[in-house]
Amino acid sequence: MTKPLSGIFTPNIVPLDPRGEINEGELRRYVDWLIDRGVHGLYPNGSTGEFTRFTPDERKRIIKIVCEQTKGRVPILAGAAEANTRETIKACELYHEYGARAVAIVSPFYYKLSPDSVYAYFREIATNSPIDVTLYNIPMFASPIDIPTLRRLSEFDRVIGIKDSSGDVAFMGRMVNTIRPNRPDFVFLTGWDVVLIPMMLMGADGGTNATSGVVPELMRRMWDLYQGKQQDAAMEIQLRLIELFDTMLYSADFPEGFRAAVELRGFEFGKGRQPLSEAQSVDRVALQRVLQCILADFGVVDAPLEGCVTRSGDLERDKVAQIAQEVMSKLRERGVI
Amino acid sequence: MTKPLSGIFTPNIVPLDPRGEINEGELRRYVDWLIDRGVHGLYPNGSTGEFTRFTPDERKRIIKIVCEQTKGRVPILAGAAEANTRETIKACELYHEYGARAVAIVSPFYYKLSPDSVYAYFREIATNSPIDVTLYNIPMFASPIDIPTLRRLSEFDRVIGIKDSSGDVAFMGRMVNTIRPNRPDFVFLTGWDVVLIPMMLMGADGGTNATSGVVPELMRRMWDLYQGKQQDAAMEIQLRLIELFDTMLYSADFPEGFRAAVELRGFEFGKGRQPLSEAQSVDRVALQRVLQCILADFGVVDAPLEGCVTRSGDLERDKVAQIAQEVMSKLRERGVI
Amino acid sequence: MTKPLSGIFTPNIVPLDPRGEINEGELRRYVDWLIDRGVHGLYPNGSTGEFTRFTPDERKRIIKIVCEQTKGRVPILAGAAEANTRETIKACELYHEYGARAVAIVSPFYYKLSPDSVYAYFREIATNSPIDVTLYNIPMFASPIDIPTLRRLSEFDRVIGIKDSSGDVAFMGRMVNTIRPNRPDFVFLTGWDVVLIPMMLMGADGGTNATSGVVPELMRRMWDLYQGKQQDAAMEIQLRLIELFDTMLYSADFPEGFRAAVELRGFEFGKGRQPLSEAQSVDRVALQRVLQCILADFGVVDAPLEGCVTRSGDLERDKVAQIAQEVMSKLRERGVI
Amino acid sequence: MTKPLSGIFTPNIVPLDPRGEINEGELRRYVDWLIDRGVHGLYPNGSTGEFTRFTPDERKRIIKIVCEQTKGRVPILAGAAEANTRETIKACELYHEYGARAVAIVSPFYYKLSPDSVYAYFREIATNSPIDVTLYNIPMFASPIDIPTLRRLSEFDRVIGIKDSSGDVAFMGRMVNTIRPNRPDFVFLTGWDVVLIPMMLMGADGGTNATSGVVPELMRRMWDLYQGKQQDAAMEIQLRLIELFDTMLYSADFPEGFRAAVELRGFEFGKGRQPLSEAQSVDRVALQRVLQCILADFGVVDAPLEGCVTRSGDLERDKVAQIAQEVMSKLRERGVI
Repeated sequence: MTKPLSGIFTPNIVPLDPRGEINEGELRRYVDWLIDRGVHGLYPNGSTGEFTRFTPDERKRIIKIVCEQTKGRVPILAGAAEANTRETIKACELYHEYGARAVAIVSPFYYKLSPDSVYAYFREIATNSPIDVTLYNIPMFASPIDIPTLRRLSEFDRVIGIKDSSGDVAFMGRMVNTIRPNRPDFVFLTGWDVVLIPMMLMGADGGTNATSGVVPELMRRMWDLYQGKQQDAAMEIQLRLIELFDTMLYSADFPEGFRAAVELRGFEFGKGRQPLSEAQSVDRVALQRVLQCILADFGVVDAPLEGCVTRSGDLERDKVAQIAQEVMSKLRERGVI
Repeated sequence: MTKPLSGIFTPNIVPLDPRGEINEGELRRYVDWLIDRGVHGLYPNGSTGEFTRFTPDERKRIIKIVCEQTKGRVPILAGAAEANTRETIKACELYHEYGARAVAIVSPFYYKLSPDSVYAYFREIATNSPIDVTLYNIPMFASPIDIPTLRRLSEFDRVIGIKDSSGDVAFMGRMVNTIRPNRPDFVFLTGWDVVLIPMMLMGADGGTNATSGVVPELMRRMWDLYQGKQQDAAMEIQLRLIELFDTMLYSADFPEGFRAAVELRGFEFGKGRQPLSEAQSVDRVALQRVLQCILADFGVVDAPLEGCVTRSGDLERDKVAQIAQEVMSKLRERGVI
Repeated sequence: MTKPLSGIFTPNIVPLDPRGEINEGELRRYVDWLIDRGVHGLYPNGSTGEFTRFTPDERKRIIKIVCEQTKGRVPILAGAAEANTRETIKACELYHEYGARAVAIVSPFYYKLSPDSVYAYFREIATNSPIDVTLYNIPMFASPIDIPTLRRLSEFDRVIGIKDSSGDVAFMGRMVNTIRPNRPDFVFLTGWDVVLIPMMLMGADGGTNATSGVVPELMRRMWDLYQGKQQDAAMEIQLRLIELFDTMLYSADFPEGFRAAVELRGFEFGKGRQPLSEAQSVDRVALQRVLQCILADFGVVDAPLEGCVTRSGDLERDKVAQIAQEVMSKLRERGVI
Repeated sequence: MTKPLSGIFTPNIVPLDPRGEINEGELRRYVDWLIDRGVHGLYPNGSTGEFTRFTPDERKRIIKIVCEQTKGRVPILAGAAEANTRETIKACELYHEYGARAVAIVSPFYYKLSPDSVYAYFREIATNSPIDVTLYNIPMFASPIDIPTLRRLSEFDRVIGIKDSSGDVAFMGRMVNTIRPNRPDFVFLTGWDVVLIPMMLMGADGGTNATSGVVPELMRRMWDLYQGKQQDAAMEIQLRLIELFDTMLYSADFPEGFRAAVELRGFEFGKGRQPLSEAQSVDRVALQRVLQCILADFGVVDAPLEGCVTRSGDLERDKVAQIAQEVMSKLRERGVI
């Protein structure tokens, strides 16, 4: 049975212009760039896409732009969570018109809801949506979707899959064991980039991986190696990606580290909607230098002119060392030392 | 120094009509009812008010209605959190025009932000808002506001206070110790109804208490007793309120239990925006019966016709027992038994 | 009805000699000192007393020494948790012989047990112990004792009370509401020093407060003021104690901060059983200086010779400033500056 | 480089006799049975082995018995955590004499310690132990060992590996990335049975898996398939093991579910040290029936005489259905129905 969704989906960040508005030109350019580098699909209005920081109208515009620009080259998984089920269903209708392949709906957040409430919420959407629905489980941010709830929801044909960002490989196995026997077509996507291959081993069909917004060619190469039965080579990339992912994820409040990294690929993403303190702005400069060195090691960008210090694994130390290197280099250049 | 805000503020729920729209008439009647029963202020668009489940336009309409209906009888603390700082600042401007006394801004949610990000977020709002700002700390739902961040934010005159729903009495003491010396006017409100008096003892100025939306006269009486140095009598009410609060809070997904209770006071709140499963709908009927018995003990509503069973403290058991009582009563009535 | 236990109990730390053995002489001197300064009871082998870091034989010796030295002047609440119920019951028998007033048994730890297991564990002890049993709830370290479990356990006459270190004032109210009607004699002690007065307001009978091992006279004064209906004066001390408690609790891994503080009262506690890293050892010196300044403000010790810097509320900064002050003072003394 | 430890280690449970004492005969028989069924090593005094519920003398006796009985057939990893570093080092010395291959020391528990304290604790042991030391990270029960702390500890030659029970596959990758370059001999064992193969993929050398105490032949077969490059066949077992593991782990307080399962393999393990409530004892009977059906599906035990109901994936329902099946079967047998 052909899966409606599989492979690497990019939960794409939205570039902003100097006024803080959606930078449509850059967004279109970014969409092309991602598709050209081989991602299998796009996932606008995800957590990486900061959907909560846009207004309902902006969220709709983002999907419209991405669908238009993609022109069917790859399937679009459109984040469609709105303030309540009625608004969400309206968004489902709209994104269906726009040509999205499916929507992804994050489990209710802010309030921590019981499994029964999570079920009732998705049931209402599933029975009213004209477009296929992918559940989105991200327990660190939203009410968890547990196995019994997933089983109940898998009884709706409209629910075609789940995107899981728990990072728990055993949980993937539990989902697969529970759902596959009755729904062999059900799609399992993982949002935890650093265990994509282990997740595939447990039965996942692919991933919605923020890292693919930064190094799409690498994620695609890892995917192709795995599909081509070259697992050892795939695992080599998988293990190397941990440093990049961790640096982007844990060095700044999500998704600012990913935003800092993608700028190095030649895009203007502008200032994020969440303001930065002075200390954070300074820190971001240092972080970006280290990220440049990590990306240079992968061969996707040039190293900084001053070269890269050997990374110690301690990011704080590495940021200071790299900045010191740059300062020394400039002083030397000017003949000061 | 006169505090801009003190006493009992009701974070009011919004009644919905059968189509799921804001029931303006019932909301206005509810506002009057609350003010008549002595609450010191209103707090629309709070967590109890399910602000996340309304659209931006609806949120604005709620504040407009509440401000209009209140006509200055009590101060309005308007929940103004929107998708990002720009939208939030626009809401601040609007609510200022509407005549709200201050806004309350919940700490950023969904993403779990670092203290520095929480600071940068509120700083941007504080330096641009034309209306006084109250911080809203609710660590179970949103990024926590810690003591150092609170201290930094208290340097902005526009930030006049904090509403804390941590329920942690020691934390109230820490806040008071840290902020009062430099900002004797700073307002501390607690959102944890069951420790209002202990919080007052630690230095709180009042509370935004969902319970006051159900039994405003009781919360007011407790407040008056405490202010009148009749602490023992106040504590008697405080301890008795625990059963009511816990039943409303832990029996259903927040704030459905409060919604079930306030209906018993003679209001039509309609179905909530978060759908209920069949099991939840059935359970809600049983819950409401037990709530009616608890409220009847306080003398604010009549007991059910079939009388009340002695509550065991085990809500599940009590719900069954109370429903059984009702069934038996009806059977007797019809001569079946 | 007279309560078997009430007032301030000190969960006393155990002094060690240079070889790391129990320093019996110093322990006896410490017991006398605490009783002389007014604590109402002693609680050896508590969490503050690092019961897990002593061998079973050492734990027994500690109780023996404390009971002997106390000679009935104050009641002893003896921590009696051992590896399993059989060993614990043996300890109960022994401590009964030693003359302890009651034992305190921490809820099972390491494994996180369900309420039913917690019940079964304490039931076995309660039905076999010749000495009154106090339950010890410390959810941050051990399996929690919830309200239904407490109610079931309160049916055993041998269970005379609970020591709760949750720090949750509302939980105290819940316990009191649930247990008092049937067991008016049941004892409620709080282990959360910074909310002792609020806890008393909710119905607590006293506290087992590590702070009383450092400033027994202050805790006693606060107690006496509260008992003497001078609540405002008691609250003034309560609020001031927060800085001391927080500094001891959060500045080092528990209970090292309390150990550092009590040394300032003139006791040799020796090196703790948990080794310190070099950084921790250096940090402890700085911490002790700040603690000396805090204690000097209470008038219980002299300020350091070099005087005290104004504390900023930021402990890390204060430690550096205080050490700098000392260094400068010494340099001045030697005529270097 | 030959790893000192690799493969499947069984963290063996200790059988007790009717008086609650260690059942030496049964323990020896169990050791033989495990070795005969192919486990690569034994790990007495682990969490599954309930080390905290034995006295220090009993813990020593357990290691002695297991070492004696094993007679060098497989390496012994001896759990050696005692009340403090001095006692732990003494245990290290003793277990060295007994012939254990290495000790495993759980990170300090009860108190939640900072990374620096965890470091200082293990450093003291590492510099004094005459036997190789394996760190034991089990963050759900004990102070976590983070990556920087692991790196610092890996500088001691005496520290030869880590046993990690976090269940986090990405964390395994992080450890491997960080430690391997400098310590290619360092051993990584996972305690999370349901992701053993994914962990191997990330670089683990084996596992200490409680499931291997119940179905050693299955765990060994999975291991051999993986080593023999038959990954798909290994993964088939891996996925099937989830049901067994989850049923043992989540159906009762750990490790009672494992104890219930191993009895089905023909051993008398006796009553555990942690008492059971009446409800738990009844529940255990039902659980054991379901476990027998799961094990029968693997072909390692016979199905119950009454046959097995189709499992629904909802354990509570399955327990009831299986017991009902048994009752019906008996009634039929007696001609009642």
